[in-house]
This record gives sequence, C-alpha cells and structure tokens, in this order.
Amino acid sequence: MNIIDEFTALSEIGATSGGGMHRLCATSIDGVARDWLRGRLEAAGARVHVDEIGNVFGLFEFVPSAPYVLTGSHIDSQPTGGKYDGAYGVVASLVAAAGIAEGVHRGEIVPRRNLAVVAWTNEEGARFQPSLMGSSVFTGALALDKALLVTDPAGISVGEALEAIGYRGIAPLDVPIEAYAEIHVEQSSSLERNGIDVAAVTASWAAYKYNLEILGEQSHTGATPMAERRDALLGAALVIAGVRTMTDSRPEGLLHSSVTELRTYPESPNVVTSHATMHVEIRSADYDALAPAEAEFLELIESAATAASVDIKIQQLWHREPARYWEPSERISHAAAARADLSSMSLLTVSGHDSIALNKIAPTVMLFVPSAGGYAHSEREFTEPDDLCNGVKLLHEVLVDLLFGDLDRTGYDTDPYRAT
Amino acid sequence: MNIIDEFTALSEIGATSGGGMHRLCATSIDGVARDWLRGRLEAAGARVHVDEIGNVFGLFEFVPSAPYVLTGSHIDSQPTGGKYDGAYGVVASLVAAAGIAEGVHRGEIVPRRNLAVVAWTNEEGARFQPSLMGSSVFTGALALDKALLVTDPAGISVGEALEAIGYRGIAPLDVPIEAYAEIHVEQSSSLERNGIDVAAVTASWAAYKYNLEILGEQSHTGATPMAERRDALLGAALVIAGVRTMTDSRPEGLLHSSVTELRTYPESPNVVTSHATMHVEIRSADYDALAPAEAEFLELIESAATAASVDIKIQQLWHREPARYWEPSERISHAAAARADLSSMSLLTVSGHDSIALNKIAPTVMLFVPSAGGYAHSEREFTEPDDLCNGVKLLHEVLVDLLFGDLDRTGYDTDPYRAT
Repeated sequence: MNIIDEFTALSEIGATSGGGMHRLCATSIDGVARDWLRGRLEAAGARVHVDEIGNVFGLFEFVPSAPYVLTGSHIDSQPTGGKYDGAYGVVASLVAAAGIAEGVHRGEIVPRRNLAVVAWTNEEGARFQPSLMGSSVFTGALALDKALLVTDPAGISVGEALEAIGYRGIAPLDVPIEAYAEIHVEQSSSLERNGIDVAAVTASWAAYKYNLEILGEQSHTGATPMAERRDALLGAALVIAGVRTMTDSRPEGLLHSSVTELRTYPESPNVVTSHATMHVEIRSADYDALAPAEAEFLELIESAATAASVDIKIQQLWHREPARYWEPSERISHAAAARADLSSMSLLTVSGHDSIALNKIAPTVMLFVPSAGGYAHSEREFTEPDDLCNGVKLLHEVLVDLLFGDLDRTGYDTDPYRAT
Repeated sequence: MNIIDEFTALSEIGATSGGGMHRLCATSIDGVARDWLRGRLEAAGARVHVDEIGNVFGLFEFVPSAPYVLTGSHIDSQPTGGKYDGAYGVVASLVAAAGIAEGVHRGEIVPRRNLAVVAWTNEEGARFQPSLMGSSVFTGALALDKALLVTDPAGISVGEALEAIGYRGIAPLDVPIEAYAEIHVEQSSSLERNGIDVAAVTASWAAYKYNLEILGEQSHTGATPMAERRDALLGAALVIAGVRTMTDSRPEGLLHSSVTELRTYPESPNVVTSHATMHVEIRSADYDALAPAEAEFLELIESAATAASVDIKIQQLWHREPARYWEPSERISHAAAARADLSSMSLLTVSGHDSIALNKIAPTVMLFVPSAGGYAHSEREFTEPDDLCNGVKLLHEVLVDLLFGDLDRTGYDTDPYRAT
C-alpha cells in the first residue's frame, strides 16, 4: 500500500466539484467511505471491530493479550470541506500500520505491543454536536447514551444514522490501550512559512464555546413602528459585530473568535424575526485571556439584548481548557523526524482533534504535516504529495517507537495548561 | 351569512395553537381554505372562476354584459401569522356580496353593474416572491409566465404548487372591471388610539426593497487568523446593525426599516460562513426621504464589505413608489361610513395591499377596521367582533355606491405621490 493511491481512492468518496470533500458524519456517503476503509484494513490483515458509537478499529494482533497502540483520525468532513482534514490521518495510519504488519510477518520487526488503526465517529461536529464525539465516548468523557440521542437539524439521531449505514456496533472495544498517535494536516501555515517538514504538537489552545438563543417577537416589517420592534436578527447582528470588535481590540493573535450556524424564524421577507440561535467561539493559546473575554462577552450580550429589545439566553456553554500533550511526545516526535531525515519544529494546535480526548487516557503523540496556504474547512485545503509521504514516514517511526519502547507515562493525564 | 360565523369557520383552517394562522400560499391547507371559499361563494349564488395564477373569483351577475365591481383581499398568511390579515377582507366581501345579491334577488336593489368577490393568490410573498403576485398578474404588472416559474426555498414553483391543490386555472377572467374595493385590518393602532371606527385609506408609503448576496470564504473558525477571515455572516451583521442605526438617526417615524430572511452557508459550528443572502427594506411616507437613505445604505454596504473582507452584491432591487388611491375614494368612504353610522378618519398605509396593484387599472377604494394593539404578522393580531361587523356594514355601503353611482375616474391611474 502507498499513501498516494490509498488517499486518492478515499478522496473520491464524497468529492466535490470544487476539489473538496462533502462527507458529513453517518450519511450514506460516509457509509461508503467506512466500507472502503473496512475493506482496506482487512486487505492489510486487520480484524475490524465497530464499537457502539461507530468508531471503526482495524486490529493487528502481533502479541496475544498485549496492550494496543492506537493510531488514527476521522473521515467525516465539514460541508464542502477539505479532503485532507482527518482523512489523511486515517489513511496515513492505514498505510503505516500495513507496512509495520508486513515487517512483523516477515520477521523483520518483533514488537512488544499490538497495533490498531481507528477512524473516530463525528470528529467535526458539523451534523451532530459536540465535535470529538466518537473519541470522547471511547475515553468516557461523553456518555454513550447521550451521544446516540443527539439529533441533526432534520431530527435524525446519531444512533439512527449509524444504524442506517450499518455502523452502529453492539460492543465496546475490549482491548487495553497503551498509547495513541495521530497525524493531521496543520490547517495553518506555520510549517510552510518556516520551510519545515513536520511538527510535533505540544499543546492545544483553549476554547470557550456558546450556543445562544435570541427571543424577539414577530411583527410586520412595514407597519410596526421602529421603537416597538423586538428583532431577534438585530440582536444577533449586534452580538456578531460586537464579538469581532472585542477580538480586534486585543493584541493580534491573542484571541480567535467566530459566530456561525445562525438559524432564524420565520424566514419571511415581511416579518420581523422572532427567534434566532447561533454558535459563538472564543479561542486563545493563553488560558488567562479567556475569562476577561468571557466577561466582556456577557456584557455584550446584555447590551445587545437591550438595544434590540430582545432576550438573549446562553443555551449551552463549553469551556475547553488548553491541554498539554503527553510530555515525552515532543522528544519522541523530533527523534522520529530525525530518523526519517525530516526537519521538525514544535507547534500548538488551535483546532480540536481526537488526540485531545485520547491524551486524557493514554500517552498521546500528535503530529502535523504542512497545509499549503493554511486553508482549512475549505475546498482550497491542499497538502503536497511529498508532505503526505513524509507524514507516513514520520508516523511509521513514531509507531515503531510506541510499539517497542518503554513508555514514560509522565504528563499524559494532563493538568490544564495554566497549571504548568 | 354573518361575518362572525363565516370568519370563525375560515379561521379554523390552518389555525395555530397560539391563536394565529399558518396558511402559506398554495400549500395543502391553503387548498382547503380555497375549497371552503368556493363552497361559500356557490352557496351565496356566485359562479366561481379560477384564473391562470389561481385567483379565485365569485361572480354575481345582476346585469348581463355590464362591467363588474370587484371586492376582496387574500387568504394566504405569513408563517405563524395573524388570522385577520387578508382573510377578514375576503370574508367581509363574501358576506357583503351575499347580502347585496339577496337584496337584488328580492328586487330591493337594482344595480347598474355586476359584483365579484376575489381572493388573490400570494399577497404575502412569504413562500414565493414577490408579494401582491396574483393581483399584479391580473393587472398586467407582472408576467404570468414569470410568476408561475417562481420557486419556494424547496424548489417548488408557483405553477406546480397551484396544480397540486387544483387551483391552477386555465383561462383569465374575461369580464370588464369597473372598480375595486378592499377592506383590511389596520395593522397599526391609529384607529384604536383615536377611538375611530373605520378609516379611508388615501395613499401608501413608498418602499425600497433589496435582496443582498454576501460572498465570503469558508475557513476554519479555530485555525484561521482573524485578519485572513472573509466572514459573510459578519458582513451581514454589519449591514443589519448599520441599517438600524441609519433609521434611528432620522426623525422618529420618518423611516421604517428591516432586515429579514437571512440564509447562510454552511451552517456548521466550526466553519466561517462563506455565503449569505438577506432581504432589506426601507419604507417612508415621504418619498423624498428614500433617495438619501438609499445612498447611505449603498455606502454602508461598501464599508461593511470592506470591514468583513467580503463582497456584497445587490441581487434584486424594487422601488415601490408611494401611490395615492383613486381621488374620490376618500369622499365615498367617509360618506359610506356616515350612512352606516360609523366614525371615520383618513389614513395612509405603510403595508402593501392588493388594492395598490388594482388602483393602477380601476377606481379603487381601500378601507381599514381597527387592529387592537396594532399587532401584525403575529399571532397576537386581534380585531374586536364589533369592528368586524362595522367593516362589513361599511363595505356594503361602499359597494352599493360603486354598483349604482356614476364613477368619477379622477386619479385612479395615479402618478407617483411626489408628483401631486
């Protein structure tokens, strides 16, 4: 197996005309991609197991009853998203694992542990919230029952959707996990700008996320005097503009913020909007920057509500703290890069990844390959074929290390970043 | 027939649990309401004709080959709208016409003209744009072929939707029209505040309407640096907030403005919005106030586009000029009110009505009854039963006048209001 052929094959399943990927979690096209992955895992000699939240595992048993090293990512995409995001990590894991399995069978490698490739369910959170769903259920951070009942905007639940494509498993994975590795495209342009081949990811940004509900009152867009309007869309607009102003008032790069997924009722040209919901995020590498930003955000909500004569409620709130990856992972990653003759640097990740969930239960290594131009969640996302190959070499070296080495367990059960 | 029983019966078809009405144009529930109307018109002795855009006419022929006086409104509603809006005018026309027809058949009244009740298709423009569709096709202001091809957000055309409910007629109405009368709930609270029974509507506000398209670029809400974002939702928010600020900067009441029907893509929490469309309106009784407002609005669009790094295009633009109703209609309405022992005043209308379309081809009388609290396009819309009865008395007197009197044709082919 080679990465270019395998990645090209998977990239055709759900490809968009704009060169991107539209493969939302547990849709029929995701089912086709999962079937493809299952077939490729079996062709490489793995036993495939699907757990209760639909995570797909390809198990290479080298040492009976020994624990497993897991490697993987996700194959669901954003709407008209990029084809590399997640999928590259799964295919890189498949190719690296197939290579290691061949080496083991030829007797060239004698590992101390077993190896499994994994494709986690619903990393993106585009169709079902929250993101990192499959990995969070796997690690126990999210209850299985709760996750299965989450519905998409059409009212279809995760459980129903997985059932429909034949990927609602009936049993959890029953093997011990010793370590986890994940490789991903960078989604930003640090590697490209610095001319470096690969990165060891040492920590993640903190993220505060909010779902807001805005309640106004239906009325006539013509006849209603301005002072009597209670316009939920105006309330939303004031929050959207205010969040951006708040972010721009900070030193450049301190905060990333966004407002997305605005839904309104009724969508009629001659009716003042009575109801709106939307999703707000504030992210920072500096955890201490988030509490004052949140305080300012709450004030902003109040003043927008007053100005538009509406009520604004926080429906749901997530505080994702920054997390430092397993401490030895940085050293392991750079050493692996050196053995593969690749230049490497250390980076933070702004985005969430399944590795953030896994890092709480097992020594975890997170790796990046470059993203040309840094485009992400976009059809313009691109990574050079050479970089795709480099990533597989790097992941191979890291996996061999995890399969053979003594695992220093320092720091995988991480405190929040602020405590370090 | 009496107005309370008939109105109560029609109000049950599409009633919402909140006391309002959800009867979008050419839906199956609209079909049920049309069937009800057809049955009541036939019970009153009318011959029913459905024209090619689905307008329903109930023809009472009193004088063979004489021209017709039309009276009516519409029975489509806004989403979770009010039950009076439009429907009251149709039922009042039905009841008044039935009473006149009885008088004619008993030999008490000998009219010079014939009478027809009409329910116009898609006055609201909630499901299909533009509003005033059926009346505009009838008067020739909108091409039939173009109207039939308009689609709703699900891609269903007006023609298909009318076909599905059995209301796509095959022939135009082939009788000459001599005059038109319409009665409507006020949708504002001038009558209530002044303690007056009914109003003669003398002119309509001008309205400028715009459909905007905002083009940004998909990117990752986490990883993308703020300066590189091209957020269509932020662009929309800046326009929404700016339009309100512009309106509030004018003397109170000079402008009414609104932004509605915001649709975005993709609706995913972790993706910066790439595409948005929305509907903007600016209305004024003072036509001269609109040109400077439009100039300011165009500047606002440019500065929002720059601030959010997006492109904002005006997809469609309507300039609805203010129109004065047929000059003698004010005198006719007040005289009719006096005969019916009702107090009356003259008012403008901020909202559009089918009568605005009809006023361009025939002498047109527009009447209001009170709206309690002025609620409109809202389930809270309410008009007292006594006011419903008063309106029928008033309409009866006006229709008798139009059926018998010499029609002074002054001013029905109106110039724009500014020219008067």
